[in-house]
Amino acid sequence: MEKVTLAHGSGGQATAELIDKVFKHHLNNEYFTADDASVLPNPQTTLAMSTDGFIVSPPFFNGGNIGKLSICGTVNDLACMGAKPLYMTCAFVIEEGFDMNKLEEIVASMEKCAKEVGVKIVAGDTKVAGKGQVDQVFITTTGVGAIKEGIKTSGAYAKAGDAIIVTGDIGRHGTCILLERDDYGIEANVSSDCAPLWNAVDALTEKVKDVHVIRDATRGGVGTVLYEIAREANVGIKLENKNIPVAKEVRGVTGMLGLDPLYLACEGRMVIVVPGDKADQTLAILHQCKHTEKAALIGYVTDEHPGHVTITTEIGSETLLPPPGNELLPRIC
Amino acid sequence: MEKVTLAHGSGGQATAELIDKVFKHHLNNEYFTADDASVLPNPQTTLAMSTDGFIVSPPFFNGGNIGKLSICGTVNDLACMGAKPLYMTCAFVIEEGFDMNKLEEIVASMEKCAKEVGVKIVAGDTKVAGKGQVDQVFITTTGVGAIKEGIKTSGAYAKAGDAIIVTGDIGRHGTCILLERDDYGIEANVSSDCAPLWNAVDALTEKVKDVHVIRDATRGGVGTVLYEIAREANVGIKLENKNIPVAKEVRGVTGMLGLDPLYLACEGRMVIVVPGDKADQTLAILHQCKHTEKAALIGYVTDEHPGHVTITTEIGSETLLPPPGNELLPRIC
Repeated sequence: MEKVTLAHGSGGQATAELIDKVFKHHLNNEYFTADDASVLPNPQTTLAMSTDGFIVSPPFFNGGNIGKLSICGTVNDLACMGAKPLYMTCAFVIEEGFDMNKLEEIVASMEKCAKEVGVKIVAGDTKVAGKGQVDQVFITTTGVGAIKEGIKTSGAYAKAGDAIIVTGDIGRHGTCILLERDDYGIEANVSSDCAPLWNAVDALTEKVKDVHVIRDATRGGVGTVLYEIAREANVGIKLENKNIPVAKEVRGVTGMLGLDPLYLACEGRMVIVVPGDKADQTLAILHQCKHTEKAALIGYVTDEHPGHVTITTEIGSETLLPPPGNELLPRIC
Repeated sequence: MEKVTLAHGSGGQATAELIDKVFKHHLNNEYFTADDASVLPNPQTTLAMSTDGFIVSPPFFNGGNIGKLSICGTVNDLACMGAKPLYMTCAFVIEEGFDMNKLEEIVASMEKCAKEVGVKIVAGDTKVAGKGQVDQVFITTTGVGAIKEGIKTSGAYAKAGDAIIVTGDIGRHGTCILLERDDYGIEANVSSDCAPLWNAVDALTEKVKDVHVIRDATRGGVGTVLYEIAREANVGIKLENKNIPVAKEVRGVTGMLGLDPLYLACEGRMVIVVPGDKADQTLAILHQCKHTEKAALIGYVTDEHPGHVTITTEIGSETLLPPPGNELLPRIC
């Protein structure tokens, strides 16, 4: 089986062949370049720009791989600003000896995911590090998006009375990676929620112009995002525990390990804050979109306990959600 | 001495502190964000976009460090398209235990270099990998630039009669890294040429609108760039050996090791191809600019030997420059 060699990262003939055979083959579009920089039409809007490095271990997991993840992560970061993802770049650092077929599978996943939301991968870079100098493969993606006219989101815009929606059941990605690492010897079938959410955000912001906050709950999970919003807007957040969607298998695993799904990473879930009277419309739109069919209203913004998140339990008592600590797992994304 | 820990990459409190203390402290500007994406004014021009991963080993070297290099690389890639670098992002992957002071020195170098050419670092990302899962620190930068009105460069635009200029003495970066690795036991003082060249390209393209090719001679060196141009434009390139600027200390080291400076990496040198009658004007402008004071005319584009590069030696004979092979050193940038 063909392997990636140091020569593939040399910038010479072998690099050119790798670009042709793997990258150009899968990512080809009118702007894709092997040159110094891609030349791109100006979208004539305010721009959004975001970057993310991906070092997830293992690079292949239930429901995706590092390639899919690297597109979703940056697409979703742009979508959080109400920006249509237009152009992306990807930079690979590959360990010498990495399997060429796996690399191709990663690149093919990237293209599939990019196509789903219509973003073009326009430029890339490939470096190869010696055995043991990098763990398998790292990918950094950067995206430029066109912010939709009239959309202005920020954690600071949350207001008392706003509804808090999550776009699907939470904690899947974190649980999935935890199981893949097999450190705990638990057998369960949990796939990552890893998904590109621009199409859902696009549909929502066509109809609901006054979305206050959109934030993707990656490292740190939904709980961290909610604390960020509570602090940035100086508001309280009140969750209804029974309404927080958690898949049965995720609940099983996290229960065994004593983890809170609110603090486990998602890679295809957003927290969306809208005026209370737009909650039903928002849910109705999201339920029609791919990846957000199970969006749920999980709570409200209040004036009480500013800077804090509280949960109402099934028996009606209100408790403080412990503020975010540090992440359980490194290399989750 | 403070070290980078896995918690600094968790996306939680420690990450926020690292961003505040190191990244925001040095990189602060009106667009810099710790949010999902930065919101940026539209430059109202055709855009250029480029990305580069940097894994240079060692990360600190004579004349620079991986931070400076990571800004120069992307700035120069944009400059090659005649694009003014506007916005950049940087994504770090840091090995657990990396020295925090070194990280700060790297980030300070990035800002210094970015300021020199007026580019804003607008967003970033920090991941931390466990000990032995990444070698010290890798940085990926991505840049968006505004292509200057009327400037259109490409390797394919080289024409017979054009002059070939290099912006300074060649092979310094490759030689410098080679010496830093100390594998050969040679003592010599060679500093990297690592430099951001946008200001020089800007000055040149203000006066000389019909620059045909601008290309930075990084991995693969000037020889590889010349072969690329010869092939893309289907022309011959004729070099005058005595006119190729090589520092005495670089010539000494490469002579001992049997290496050709034409095939050693530069990180602050460009190959610029202009119409023959613009050669003097081009040199006069470059000689006035920082980092290109020693620009030199090294040859001409011809109709002979299309796809090939020849050199006229000191005794007047013409020989073929051997086509590029693969790079001598991995992790040179």
